[in-house]
Amino acid sequence: MSTLAELGEFEVIQRLRAVRSPAPGVIVGAGDDAAVTHPRDGFDLVTTADCFIEGTHFLPDWFTAREAGRRLATANLSDIAAMAATPRWAVESIGAPADRSVEWLEQFERGLDEALFAAEAGLVGGNITACPTAFFCLTLVGDVAPGAAWSRDGARAGDLLAVSGMPGRAGAAVRLAAALGDRARDPLWRDVLRAWIAPTARLELARRLAPLGVVSAAIDLSDGLAGDLGHVCRASAVGAEIDMAAWPEDPHLERAARELGAAPDDLRLGPSDDYELLLAVAPEGREACERVARDAGVPLHFIGRFTDAAAGITKIDGSGRRPLGGAGYDHFAQSES
Amino acid sequence: MSTLAELGEFEVIQRLRAVRSPAPGVIVGAGDDAAVTHPRDGFDLVTTADCFIEGTHFLPDWFTAREAGRRLATANLSDIAAMAATPRWAVESIGAPADRSVEWLEQFERGLDEALFAAEAGLVGGNITACPTAFFCLTLVGDVAPGAAWSRDGARAGDLLAVSGMPGRAGAAVRLAAALGDRARDPLWRDVLRAWIAPTARLELARRLAPLGVVSAAIDLSDGLAGDLGHVCRASAVGAEIDMAAWPEDPHLERAARELGAAPDDLRLGPSDDYELLLAVAPEGREACERVARDAGVPLHFIGRFTDAAAGITKIDGSGRRPLGGAGYDHFAQSES
Repeated sequence: MSTLAELGEFEVIQRLRAVRSPAPGVIVGAGDDAAVTHPRDGFDLVTTADCFIEGTHFLPDWFTAREAGRRLATANLSDIAAMAATPRWAVESIGAPADRSVEWLEQFERGLDEALFAAEAGLVGGNITACPTAFFCLTLVGDVAPGAAWSRDGARAGDLLAVSGMPGRAGAAVRLAAALGDRARDPLWRDVLRAWIAPTARLELARRLAPLGVVSAAIDLSDGLAGDLGHVCRASAVGAEIDMAAWPEDPHLERAARELGAAPDDLRLGPSDDYELLLAVAPEGREACERVARDAGVPLHFIGRFTDAAAGITKIDGSGRRPLGGAGYDHFAQSES
Repeated sequence: MSTLAELGEFEVIQRLRAVRSPAPGVIVGAGDDAAVTHPRDGFDLVTTADCFIEGTHFLPDWFTAREAGRRLATANLSDIAAMAATPRWAVESIGAPADRSVEWLEQFERGLDEALFAAEAGLVGGNITACPTAFFCLTLVGDVAPGAAWSRDGARAGDLLAVSGMPGRAGAAVRLAAALGDRARDPLWRDVLRAWIAPTARLELARRLAPLGVVSAAIDLSDGLAGDLGHVCRASAVGAEIDMAAWPEDPHLERAARELGAAPDDLRLGPSDDYELLLAVAPEGREACERVARDAGVPLHFIGRFTDAAAGITKIDGSGRRPLGGAGYDHFAQSES
């Protein structure tokens, strides 16, 4: 007998997947940001589920109910963005202690609704039940033209590696909150904290990039860059190298790193759920992507390239080339690496 | 400020629904067994979510992991059956303590997979996270011809009221287990316990009944007959009368009632999640429905009729006509009525 803690999240997922029988009409099954299925000619269906446990995925001291609801919607919308799909309808399962106030829940739902509504999606059903630990599970269904969904497994050696936004800030905010307590509420840390408390799903960027036809693989950053890049490399059977010199300056992250006594690069690559997009891009598509991102007002940086699998996953910085350590966040092992 | 316990499950649901913005493409929104949405011409999408909390929705002393998984799938399949839809793809969110054995989870997933596979549906994705209370949330997507989904709101005064199977057994089993402890494992109680531990979703019956075009409203019994009939009557703005003399004999239920010191009729109408179908049927369709049910090998009994709303919901038995008391199971109030 093995416990979940002994095996760790990703091994557990492998074990559970092995139990499943094949289902008809599945284009992309488990193991991507979302499942892609083909109900009828004309379009594909994209389905994703995410679950927030109070105290784990959001800390009541740091999140209002509304912010927590908005963030749960964003986590799901981000998975739909990473598939280049259009979000449509969501259903939610809530577990909540009987002494929870309905006003708190209304605020949570308000935040959830706001984020879905802004994405032209909506909550169409769900259920609620009593549970000592509060949890919120959202399933979001989207659609996409047949065969047009991005997946994790299309990266090719030679493709460029691009990332949106300023990854690492969300993870830095978690560590600042733990290290500084209320002092982390100082306006000095506002931009870093916002990445944690009020992230944005990159739907608009994905919507504009998809028609270019140059993105060969995509994932959203929910585990952290090193962890999520590892997912893409395994799924695509490629390696990757990250050039740390190609990253943008991020004075906010650098200040947080100093405060935490951490290396900025470790924050950029380590556990952090920024809900940014990590993309594999055909080299000839770089300029078009940069133009589209500029038009969308979203930072997009080319920070490396995909290689043969044999080269592994490495990072190049001032001290040379080294294997990129580290998986992402593991919900059972609860260890960072 | 009001707690969930003070308001009760159904009032809480009303409050949370009021927060939602309208979403485009919604045919049937929250408040039915499943949501119906219209992604493209040619078909409607039917989406339902159900969540099992260990210790609430299944008791580890009474359910193997495999039985619990099978029952969660059945709860969702039953909602799809109640919409006359075809189940297709499911995603699951699991919360589990870190010291849970992966073998237990594998057995749970095996049960879930078996029930989905038998219905020609399959699990295509999901996620798992650490949570002190184990929970399992399943979202199931099905499809149906445009406009063909059954709903709760179509019952008309004069329609007949039919129910499949032998409702009340599942609730009786819960009470037997509590009252008798291990003695409830005696083969004497096997048929009653099976209704609780291994219920069947009535997909096949729904699939055969739908083309007759005589079912005007449907719901699956997950709260209990009185509670679920109340849902249909409110949604359809009708009343109903149940003729207790029209019910089939159920010696198993009657034996359980004697053991529990309860009236069999109270078990039939009270809280009980049997996953049977309750249907409103146009009077001229009765014989065709009976024939179809016989062919499918599923008991189907006509136990009353729908009336004007003004007549309320009543039951007729040896002592005359009386208002039908009782809502279904309330997850927050935790009171039976």
